[in-house]
Amino acid sequence: MIFDEIDTPGVLVDLDKAEANIRAFQSYADSHGLKVRPHIKTHKLPMIAAYQVAEGAVGITCQKVSEAEAMIAGGGVSDVMLTYNIIGERKLRRLRTLSETVRLSVVADNADVARGLSAAFEDAARPLDVLVECNTGADRCGVGTPEAATELAREIETLPGIRFAGLMTYPPSGKPQAVAAWLGRAKELIEAAGIAVPVISSGGSPDMWNAHEMPLATEYRIGTYAYNDGFLVGQGTCTWDDCALTVLATVVSVPAGNRAVIDAGSKVLTSDLLGLTGHGHVLGRPDLMIDRLSEEHGRIVSEGPIGLSVGERVRIVPNHACVVSNMLDQVELVRGEEYLGPTPVVARGKVW
Amino acid sequence: MIFDEIDTPGVLVDLDKAEANIRAFQSYADSHGLKVRPHIKTHKLPMIAAYQVAEGAVGITCQKVSEAEAMIAGGGVSDVMLTYNIIGERKLRRLRTLSETVRLSVVADNADVARGLSAAFEDAARPLDVLVECNTGADRCGVGTPEAATELAREIETLPGIRFAGLMTYPPSGKPQAVAAWLGRAKELIEAAGIAVPVISSGGSPDMWNAHEMPLATEYRIGTYAYNDGFLVGQGTCTWDDCALTVLATVVSVPAGNRAVIDAGSKVLTSDLLGLTGHGHVLGRPDLMIDRLSEEHGRIVSEGPIGLSVGERVRIVPNHACVVSNMLDQVELVRGEEYLGPTPVVARGKVW
Repeated sequence: MIFDEIDTPGVLVDLDKAEANIRAFQSYADSHGLKVRPHIKTHKLPMIAAYQVAEGAVGITCQKVSEAEAMIAGGGVSDVMLTYNIIGERKLRRLRTLSETVRLSVVADNADVARGLSAAFEDAARPLDVLVECNTGADRCGVGTPEAATELAREIETLPGIRFAGLMTYPPSGKPQAVAAWLGRAKELIEAAGIAVPVISSGGSPDMWNAHEMPLATEYRIGTYAYNDGFLVGQGTCTWDDCALTVLATVVSVPAGNRAVIDAGSKVLTSDLLGLTGHGHVLGRPDLMIDRLSEEHGRIVSEGPIGLSVGERVRIVPNHACVVSNMLDQVELVRGEEYLGPTPVVARGKVW
Repeated sequence: MIFDEIDTPGVLVDLDKAEANIRAFQSYADSHGLKVRPHIKTHKLPMIAAYQVAEGAVGITCQKVSEAEAMIAGGGVSDVMLTYNIIGERKLRRLRTLSETVRLSVVADNADVARGLSAAFEDAARPLDVLVECNTGADRCGVGTPEAATELAREIETLPGIRFAGLMTYPPSGKPQAVAAWLGRAKELIEAAGIAVPVISSGGSPDMWNAHEMPLATEYRIGTYAYNDGFLVGQGTCTWDDCALTVLATVVSVPAGNRAVIDAGSKVLTSDLLGLTGHGHVLGRPDLMIDRLSEEHGRIVSEGPIGLSVGERVRIVPNHACVVSNMLDQVELVRGEEYLGPTPVVARGKVW
């Protein structure tokens, strides 16, 4: 039985595959003169962040102060960008403490956030770098126009304790020209106002191999590429064989000829579909479909005979690796068929 | 600002509401002579399990050995049913240990599972109670016919270390007559084989107020009723005011007149839709829709002006309370507007 030492359900991380994925994109980015700033949300493991930096990443990306704290405690990281509007005294105090340990930058997409950052850093030894988050079409956060970006950059420059450090966007997929036009116009306007734009930070795994089509970007933030998942296979970005994170599950019931139940439900695989059909890909069995999850049950169905028996183990590539990393307190490290042992998911559940 | 002491995103549990929900169903069940065996998956908190037992529950339901271990360690619980096929030496060893601490019963829906249980308990001081899980239409686990239930009951009776303790089903919603016919026939067949059927265990929150329509059941397993959620409001089982679990979030960006972003994404609210539209209900603002989640961002949209500002807090009833309980290491206990403090979610992430 595969990985008999590992109790199921288990989240397996194949370090050989993760390292190969990390090296492949670093090499691509190097060849295009693009800096890499990996997003740790995918792995939440200091050891992988340290590997990313050792292979050439300029630093890491986190969303939350608590994630950054967890990653820094692991060592190997000295440059962090928080791509999130940090709000509230509690978080700002911790942000200030964080700034004393690492080279730190954050983003803002509105003046309230900028003023909060300024108040927290006005007596700091060095100003906090603040990038303006730009909505280039993904319609999440971000100022809405290049003119609004310029206005916020000006405001940041006038506030004590912080300084404008560039533009950041989480771009819509597949629209490099529109993104480049938006950011190019913003850069032009801001420079015309006498303010330098040292960093233009873009990102996203689906478009990773086309990152060079938006040459305006100085750095690329990327998370899922380290593990890959069913969504990225669906996007044509990678193959099943490139998927470093898999879920090991046991068949607990085969109640009908075309139905089986495994001990991995939404508490491991999550309900994230990302537009896919089914809740994960059973490796080696493309004829099977995980058609329904409850918290502890994954239901597998087939058109023909299910061909699974009680006690048998299966390995599943989830739809979305990042969220699976967030479900269990530990992942099981492997290299191929070799089991190395568990490691705590240090930045799991860090939402503050 | 509401609950200023609580950092966001936070999962709030209003004990007044949870206790009222627990008492209401206990009272209903008492009036129909139905025993209550709450499923702890919703709260994962020993203190609430102890309250449920103190109010009259005969014991608790868990899916996993590790959940039971976590709940028992908290005290107040002496009777546990594990409604899951327990497979594998590691889990069976822990199940055996568990049986030495509490009155324990488990289920099986196939002979492989029954034989594994028997092997683990053949030298135990008293036999392990095993219920046969029946598929009465939900098509997850369970033997497929009353005849198959009878056959498995016979096999359990012949195996050393275990004994047949009754029938268990996770029924399809809204079909009490079909479920009663199925279980009635199985009971008849098993009794005709000279085997007693002391327990018939059914459950499910959506049908909670109709549990008496299936009088064959001796006990009812129920989880979500303690907290309630958007799904149960949609089912007409409860009102928004009965929802004990809410997510407290901060508006971090209002990038457009009809769009805002909160700091609760799928890492708190999860992607569970359960057939609903949107990712949660913003209390007091039925005009708002949480239309998109990423891991740390919840996007709120509106037809008219969004009427939210950066830094403002909102409270959200999630679609599915049980899975939200599983996301953070702690929940914040409140009674009305009073904040009592955080408590660790002891059985969070227990999948083994």
